[in-house]
Amino acid sequence: MQVVVPFAAGEPKTRLAGTLTAEERRAFALAMLDDVLAAIRSTGREPRVLSTRPIDIDAPLEVDSRPLTPAVNDVFAAADSTAIVMADLALATPTALERLFSAEGDVVIAPGRGGGTNALVSRHSEFRVDYHGTSYLDHLEIAAEIGASVTELDSHRIATDVDEVSDLAEVLMHGTGTARDWLLDAGFSLSVTGGRVSVTR
Amino acid sequence: MQVVVPFAAGEPKTRLAGTLTAEERRAFALAMLDDVLAAIRSTGREPRVLSTRPIDIDAPLEVDSRPLTPAVNDVFAAADSTAIVMADLALATPTALERLFSAEGDVVIAPGRGGGTNALVSRHSEFRVDYHGTSYLDHLEIAAEIGASVTELDSHRIATDVDEVSDLAEVLMHGTGTARDWLLDAGFSLSVTGGRVSVTR
Repeated sequence: MQVVVPFAAGEPKTRLAGTLTAEERRAFALAMLDDVLAAIRSTGREPRVLSTRPIDIDAPLEVDSRPLTPAVNDVFAAADSTAIVMADLALATPTALERLFSAEGDVVIAPGRGGGTNALVSRHSEFRVDYHGTSYLDHLEIAAEIGASVTELDSHRIATDVDEVSDLAEVLMHGTGTARDWLLDAGFSLSVTGGRVSVTR
Repeated sequence: MQVVVPFAAGEPKTRLAGTLTAEERRAFALAMLDDVLAAIRSTGREPRVLSTRPIDIDAPLEVDSRPLTPAVNDVFAAADSTAIVMADLALATPTALERLFSAEGDVVIAPGRGGGTNALVSRHSEFRVDYHGTSYLDHLEIAAEIGASVTELDSHRIATDVDEVSDLAEVLMHGTGTARDWLLDAGFSLSVTGGRVSVTR
């Protein structure tokens, strides 16, 4: 099984623009990518990165400047089975990823909070992705159309992609890698107001 | 193992006050409770409800008007092992709950998004809950203090308690029971704006 981690190198994590500078967002995005790659390697697999432009990363790199959907769909042809794991899953652990990789089914989908598809495995030659909109529901539909069996991976760690400020609290609470260290070094800490957890800097 | 579902009957789901009337919030909270009880029963266990006041529900009912923490802590004495499952886990399935109940460890904690503890199992006579603040971290600490082994249950379905409008989208996408039907009957549907999913009514 090939394991591919797409990375949008241009202007990553724009929804954190109110909290982090453009340079900080790039550094934080690269820290999360590092963590995801390390967690995949700990399962005994060798990931490669599919980036929209060249980046300095210690992993096999493929550059494809197209949008995510066509770039990923071209990747499927290279192997009988493919795993696509998003680069901003800062809570992903080897245990959670092993559950993904070893789950049975023609297609394994790990939904993200908000209807996205944070990770998937395809073992079906006709399966194609469509990351626009609520891709979780779209992927269920695409799988049904081609008669592919679907397994849902139920994981909070993989469902949590880091897009918004509230997600940073999840990284501080549950992260174990360089992205959490990066946030701590940048001065972030948990704060609880009115029974709800957030972060302060 | 006793399985207890606490329910705040007074003014449930106040964070949905901008979206649902008080009467609707009560009805929706009861629909979610129904779903949680049904999912627990599907694992072969008989849940009882720990409510702050009498409610009309088809399950063994215990009324305790105190805050959640002391009410739950008194429950532990009644059995060698106890599971506490929150009443607003509208995405919980029998599969996800079985993973919780059958996970090994003196204490099993299923974190909620935002640092809460959405479900737990205690098999340790000294374990006590503290639901104030980031209870997930507090429960780790309490377990460490008494030398109890801890297993984390990594589940998006159990991590998703339904408190805010964005959580309603999760119910529409992943729910399978009466709470989802209630939302559909009330006129809610998914809407996607700017790549992010929400609900409209």
